[in-house]
Parts: sequence; structure tokens; C-alpha cells
Amino acid sequence: MTAMLANQLTGQMIIAGSPVTGSGAEIRGFDPAAGAALEPVYRHGDSTDVQTAAAAAAAAFPTYRATTSEQRAQFLEAIATRIEAVGETLIARAVAESGLPQARITGEVGRTTGQLRLFAGVLREGSWNGARIDTALPDRAPLPRPDIRQRNIALGPVAVFSASNFPLAFSVAGGDTASALAAGCPVIVKAHDAHPGTSEIVARAITAAVADSGLPAGTFSLLYGTGEQLGIQLVTDPRIKAVGFTGSRTGGTALVAAAAARPEPIPVYAEMSSINPVFLLDGALQSRGPELGKAFIGSLTMGSGQFCTNPGLIIAVDGPGLDAFVDAAREAVSAAPAAPMLTPHIARNYANGVESLSGAAELVARGERSSSETCGQAALFSTDADRFLASQDLQAEVFGSSSLIVRCADADQMAAVAQGLEGQLTATVHAEDTDLEAAGRLLPLLELKAGRILFNGWPTGVEVCHAMVHGGPFPATSDSRTTSVGARAIERFLRPVAYQGVPKALLPNAIADGNPDGLWRRVDGQLTQS
Amino acid sequence: MTAMLANQLTGQMIIAGSPVTGSGAEIRGFDPAAGAALEPVYRHGDSTDVQTAAAAAAAAFPTYRATTSEQRAQFLEAIATRIEAVGETLIARAVAESGLPQARITGEVGRTTGQLRLFAGVLREGSWNGARIDTALPDRAPLPRPDIRQRNIALGPVAVFSASNFPLAFSVAGGDTASALAAGCPVIVKAHDAHPGTSEIVARAITAAVADSGLPAGTFSLLYGTGEQLGIQLVTDPRIKAVGFTGSRTGGTALVAAAAARPEPIPVYAEMSSINPVFLLDGALQSRGPELGKAFIGSLTMGSGQFCTNPGLIIAVDGPGLDAFVDAAREAVSAAPAAPMLTPHIARNYANGVESLSGAAELVARGERSSSETCGQAALFSTDADRFLASQDLQAEVFGSSSLIVRCADADQMAAVAQGLEGQLTATVHAEDTDLEAAGRLLPLLELKAGRILFNGWPTGVEVCHAMVHGGPFPATSDSRTTSVGARAIERFLRPVAYQGVPKALLPNAIADGNPDGLWRRVDGQLTQS
Repeated sequence: MTAMLANQLTGQMIIAGSPVTGSGAEIRGFDPAAGAALEPVYRHGDSTDVQTAAAAAAAAFPTYRATTSEQRAQFLEAIATRIEAVGETLIARAVAESGLPQARITGEVGRTTGQLRLFAGVLREGSWNGARIDTALPDRAPLPRPDIRQRNIALGPVAVFSASNFPLAFSVAGGDTASALAAGCPVIVKAHDAHPGTSEIVARAITAAVADSGLPAGTFSLLYGTGEQLGIQLVTDPRIKAVGFTGSRTGGTALVAAAAARPEPIPVYAEMSSINPVFLLDGALQSRGPELGKAFIGSLTMGSGQFCTNPGLIIAVDGPGLDAFVDAAREAVSAAPAAPMLTPHIARNYANGVESLSGAAELVARGERSSSETCGQAALFSTDADRFLASQDLQAEVFGSSSLIVRCADADQMAAVAQGLEGQLTATVHAEDTDLEAAGRLLPLLELKAGRILFNGWPTGVEVCHAMVHGGPFPATSDSRTTSVGARAIERFLRPVAYQGVPKALLPNAIADGNPDGLWRRVDGQLTQS
Repeated sequence: MTAMLANQLTGQMIIAGSPVTGSGAEIRGFDPAAGAALEPVYRHGDSTDVQTAAAAAAAAFPTYRATTSEQRAQFLEAIATRIEAVGETLIARAVAESGLPQARITGEVGRTTGQLRLFAGVLREGSWNGARIDTALPDRAPLPRPDIRQRNIALGPVAVFSASNFPLAFSVAGGDTASALAAGCPVIVKAHDAHPGTSEIVARAITAAVADSGLPAGTFSLLYGTGEQLGIQLVTDPRIKAVGFTGSRTGGTALVAAAAARPEPIPVYAEMSSINPVFLLDGALQSRGPELGKAFIGSLTMGSGQFCTNPGLIIAVDGPGLDAFVDAAREAVSAAPAAPMLTPHIARNYANGVESLSGAAELVARGERSSSETCGQAALFSTDADRFLASQDLQAEVFGSSSLIVRCADADQMAAVAQGLEGQLTATVHAEDTDLEAAGRLLPLLELKAGRILFNGWPTGVEVCHAMVHGGPFPATSDSRTTSVGARAIERFLRPVAYQGVPKALLPNAIADGNPDGLWRRVDGQLTQS
């Protein structure tokens, strides 16, 4: 299968519909399960490639943003269909490049096409337009009120940085790309070196959909390169108007700084770092401590712990309930098999992170060892709240199956730990009915710390829906006012424009008289569909 | 009247309800019409004052954000009532400190109280909550969908920087304060040195309303100080979570940089610099060139040209129509009386800006001279499109009654000028029915440059309503995705939080079962009020 795929893959970038061979460093996909490099060779692009892609995106923008919601909805659906058409090939390559199980990758393909179709639905529903009409009041004293209308328009070409850990759903046709394309923004993706072949397959699917849909070729480009070099060139190109990123805190903050230092600063939506605290309340520990301990390790070790929402922190009040939880967790983690991580680099970083924690906290247990350097060995640590509150280092994200249990003296100390946390993507509470009062005191603290609060579940698994928030205060993201998953992600790539006294013949449909598109609109302050 | 006022004013800051005498530089209000300093003396605060105010705001935040929409609506109305109760005193002091006409200041009081009441209405209408509910799908395969809900919450304490040119509507109780308080954020205002007495009167009105409403005293504070010192301390205080600013490009970009360099970066909404291009199309010039020329100068010289939306640039195709426009404008500007500017500093900057333009463009006419150094003398310049496109300097904002006419060879060159513009608050088109096609070609270009596009009017005068956008691409603002005027300004101080599987007893009303507050909510993707 791999041999056949190598024949199909060209190892080229795709810039505005055309294959382009890079002139920079050679890279290859790497199969962490087999410990072997994959064909073909890919090469990084250079500043010329960035400029070509950015110029094409800027040229495509006026045409692309002027497409109707229906046209863009059909385009997103065409991408989904094109991805499904190469599903078997795509899944095989993504499994090989990521070392992730086939079932997981198969699910991720479904998630990716589901996201594209969700945004098709968002486009057809039409509220994304943000249509508002304040009707003229010609007789108002002392001054008449003019006719003023408002709608959202696309920001411009968007640079998307693929994540390592979701080779499909947060990658070439992932949530950032889908939401930016939905908004009417051309997209330039910087592929992640961890899955170049997967990236090429998906980029070809998008490119085919661009052509099928009669859209300008510059609507989409795929580049290979490092974040430090090609990535910064992309973010600082004056034609790029917004950035989507999922990755490390170091990488995200570097892009944020580069974007802020531009002559014209632009927004960067960087999803970066989160340790996803889980609070275990007394009633929950008493009634199901051992079950929670086992389920916790299931969530922790899933996908070798390589989730942004991995539960990296457990907080509970000391006592027999917590002891029972820890006993079960110790047993489960000790039996957790070593599993391949996405790349040798990520595996090394994980080992270093665990090493650091070993010096700062008490080891509870390690998972099974492996002779492979690319495999991650699960790790569970414990500390007390005083030491946790005294050391910012204990809040550093260790990307992989490592977690830290913080033992608190009482509920007040648990609240102090909650208040001492950095910003998070998620905060979880396990609570029984008897814990409701305690949970009610905790909830307002957690609202200020996290983008999503969940009860009696585990944070891994982010539902793609209308109410999802995959975001949160810094350093979870660089912009807590948004979400990178779910319907509201489209809002990141829009801005409002007001139209005052604009001739009826020139008004876009969204804010035209008679509501030709049947949108929900705010007319004189009231929502109406008429 | 001024003597009586001096007796009432204390010259103190108000920090969390308590008067505090500053320890820094002495300042006084200055009456530019009389050329005389006003009593009493005010003194700048220091870092201790910043810390006291920030600590009080942070302490007030949990209580204040937990108030209901109705409670905050009544609080905003109480501020408006308190301001009206001191209306006569306030108007007299604001006229004295600004040199602006009484009718203008009286109107601005109405605008300020109107803004407060608009946000009371926004709160009661309730869509600001952004309520979304995705119902659980327990039988979904392969995995059930949990119950997920979303609402917006307040960001935290907000620092507001008053503008010089609207001593009421963009000052202590102005749009930034009103929208931040509406969102549930405590506010710390840095007063503008140009109107310290006006600031004290309004701050006392807000402080009284805080007490009347039973809110924590830290909900509001007023500080005096420079932007460079106290302002930066405020923006870099870790308890401040967002910033509203109206002022110069230099001041705004300094605050943006300071906020970006924080360990936890925060959003800054800086409204800064705009020259508000006005495009005169052929039909409009032919049918009403002279009237347009006269009306243009009326808009240009209103309030000594001290509006963010002052028409600083006229763009038209050369010909007899433009000549007639220029003739009328020349006549009108020549007859424009010199008028006091807000401060001697602003008058000096204006004179310097006009001096710079004199070297780079051709003088059409100056307004009447004045012996007073605080008076601004109107100025009208002209250049051709080639020179305009070649010099970024000609796009620099000259704050005051100065404008530049750009003569284009044809419609294509006019489009090139539009494309060469920096970001703007507004773009205006004057067009007749015969110009519709030309206007239709221009409109998409202007959408990418400005927050508001208006036809057959003048950009001065910003309606406070639901559809207004007072914003636009950099450098008009630091964040084009928002507006600082109108109902949507509240969105700047909110962020979404998702609630997954949260026990019904703990859900906030906005996303509770049964919709107790009767809100418009998005349930499974569809808007509904049931």
C-alpha cells in the first residue's frame, strides 16, 4: 500500500492549483510505528513560494469573497466529497505518518468532512452575515436619522498552520481552513512536517474542488516549511490578513509577536497550551473513586495523550476517596502499554517533560516501557497544593500521557488552586448531587479560567457543534474571544461594515430591502426573519 | 458660574468611591476661548493609585459580573439620570474646558445618556448572552453527544482612555465605559487632561449611581495621569483584561504594544487615525458641484475639524465639475472663521500638520486668521493622484480643519487611489443615479478599507444605533472586528464559555431549560425564543 501511494504522491507543494517543487530542506513522512521514513521526499518552500501563494490569494480574494453563501456551501461540500473519494488512500497514509490507530484516523476523516458540512449549513442558515438594519427616521429632531445597515465581510487571505496531532481535523482541510473558506477568505496552509503525504492528498482534494467549483486557483495553496522561517514569512506578508494556528506555546507566541510587529497588525488565533484541570469533588470520589481513576487513565493515554484537551491535572481534597482514586489510577497507568508518538521530536519532548516533573513532584507510577524511542511511556505524578501553588513550572504542559495529581487540604485550598491556574481550554468537575453546593462555588472560578466547563466526563473529545467553545484565556489561546471548533469559528475571519444611505441598487442581498435571502436580521434592534 | 463650579469641584481622583488627591504633576482645565486656566488644580496619580483601583476592580468583578441584565440596565439608567441631574453645571464646565459651543456640548450630553440607555436596552433584549444549546443525543453512534450550551461572560476589569475631542461621549461615561459596564466589566477611566473638571463631575455621577445601585465600589474608578506613565501602568496591570482607547495613532499603538508584551496579552480597542476619504463621482459633481463644495467645508470646519470622521481627503476625476466644487470650497474655506481648538497642544500639532502639507501639496486656500495661538485656521490643499500615490506622508492625519483634494485623471486612477488608502473609519461617495455603475465598482474596494461607507452625506456625525460601525482596518483602529459606537460595542468585552453536561441546577438563566429570561437562543443551530 505504501509503495503504491508513493507512486501517487509527488512530494510537491500546491500553489494556486499548480504543483511546485520546493528548493529548501528535504523532509519525509515518518512511520513511528515502523520506525521508518516514508516516500516520497518533500522539500520546504522559500520566500518566493510564499510570495507567489500570497499574491494568488490576494488576487483571488475579490472574486472569492463575492461568491454567495450557497456557492461557498457547495464548495465546502465538494471538498468533503473529494476527501471521501480518496478515503482509503488517505487513511492508510495518515495512519502510517501518525502512528495513530486506523479507527481513530477513520473517525477523524469523518470529523473533517463533518466540519466542512457544518460550515456549509452555517452558510445556508445565514446568520453569519450579522445583518442589521436601522431604518431612516427622516422626521427625527433635531437631526434626521439616515438609513444605516450592517453586514459582515471576509477579512482577506488567511494563513493556516497545521497541527501535528490531528493530521486531518486540525490540518490542511481542518477547522481553521473550513471556517476561513466559509467566511470568504482564501487560505494558504503551512503543512506540518509530521504528515506531508496526508497533507498532499488533502490539498489535492481541495484543489480539485476549487477547480470543480469554478473558483480562482489562488483560493487555496499548500506550502511546506518551518514555522520559524516560511511560517514567519507567511504571517508577515502584507497580503495575509489573519492567522489560524494549533500547536505549541512557543510557536504560537512567536507568530503572535510577528503579527503584532507588522506595519499593519493582524489577528492571530493560536490554540497553544492547556493542562485541562479535573476537579474531583468529595461525593464523586466517595461514590465512584476507583471507576474515576480507571476512566481518567483511559482519557489520559488515549492517542498517546497527544490531545490539546488531555487531562494533565487532577485536583481533589485529600482523604480515603482520593486514595482509592489514586490506587485505581496507579494500577491502570502501570498497565498502560507504551504507544508510538507522532514524531521522534514529540517523543523526545515528552520524555524531557516527564524528566522535569520527576524532579518536582512525587512519582505515582509509570506505564509500560518500550525499547522504541518514538514510544511514549505514560507517567502519573502527585504533589500537594502548597507546592503546586508555589511553582509555576508544575503548570507547564507536558504533551503526552503525563498527569499530575494535586492533593488539597480542604475545599478552600481547592478553590485557591483553581484561582492560581493559567488559562485553559477546558475545566472538568466530577460531582454527585451531594456536591452541588461545592460545585456551585467552583463554577464561577472555572468560568474565568477555561473556554469549556464539563461535568462528569473527560475533556478529550471535542464535539463539533454550534455551542462548542474550543478556546479559552491565554495561554490556552491567544484570543479568548473566539473558538477554533464549532460554528462560531467562522466569526474569527469576519468584520462588520456599516452602509449608510447606500443606494438600494448597490446593497448586498444580506441587507437588501425585502430580505431576498430570508435571513434572520436585526431590524431597528429586533430580530426578525421578515 | 465658573467660580461656583470651582467651589464644587475638589480636584481629586475617585478610586472605588473614595476621593483621592494625586501626588503627581499639577494640571488644570484650560478655557481655549478665554485663553485662561481654570480652577481647581488637579494632580496626576501614581502607580499606587493604579494598583488600588485595579485591586478594587478585581475585587468587584465577581459580584458585578454576577448581576442580572436587568440590574445592570437599571445601573446604566441611574448613571444617565445622575448625569442629567447635574446637566447645567456639567455643560458649563465642558464648554469652558473644550471651547466647544454650548449647543454642541448639550447635544453631546444627550448622546452620552442616550448611549447609556441604548445599552440598557441591549441588556434587556438579551441577545448579548449569545445563548446556544445543542441538546444531548444519547443514542448517536458511534458516540453519544453530550448536552452542550454556550453563553458569553465578561472579560474582567477594563481600562478606558478618554478622548480629548468628545469630553462626554468618548470620555468618562462614554461609549467604552457604557459598553464595558453593560458587559459586566468594572471600569477604570484614565481622564484626559483636556477636561479634568468635566471628568470629575461625570465620575461623581457614576460613583453615586454605583452606590444607589448597591454595587461594589470598585466597579468604577477615575484616575488622572499621562498615557506614557499612568496609562502604561494601567494597561500592564495583570488585573486589567481589556482596554478601550480613543486618541492618536502614537498613543494607541503604544498601548497596543504594551498590552501585547504582557505575560498575559489582552485585547486593546484603540480608535486612532482616519482621514475619511470622500469620492465625488462625475454625475454628482456635474449636478451639484458648488453645493458639495460648500457642504464639504461645513463638515470640515465643524467643531474646528476635531472629529475622528473629519473629511480629510477628497478624491475626484479632474474636469469642470471638480473645478466648480473647488471654487465653492475655496470661497467657503476662505470665509471660515478661526475657531478655538481643544487645547494649545492640539492647536500646535494642527499648525505643524498644516505646515507639513504646505510643503507637499498645493495650497487652495486658508480660512480666516486669528491672533490666538489656540485657534485653528482652516486649510485646503490640492494634489494629483500620481503624487498622492507616491507619498505615504500625504495620508497622515492632520487633526483639525485641514483637507486635501486629490485630482485623478480618470476612474481607473480613482480606483487606484482607493486601493492605495490605509484603513479608515469611513469612506464617502457622492453619486447620482447616472453614477451607479461607477459607484458599484468602487464599493467593493471601499468595503476593504473602511468600517462605514456612506453615500451622499458627510462622515461627521456618528449615529448611535444597532447597525453602526465606528471602526475599520488599521490604522483606523487596532481591531477591525469590532465597533466602538453602537450596540455591538458590548461584544468587545465578552467571551464565550461552553457548558458540557453541567447539572441543570447550576446552569445560568441564559442557558437554562425553559428559557426563563425569554431570550433569543440558538437551539440545535436554529434561532428560537421558546
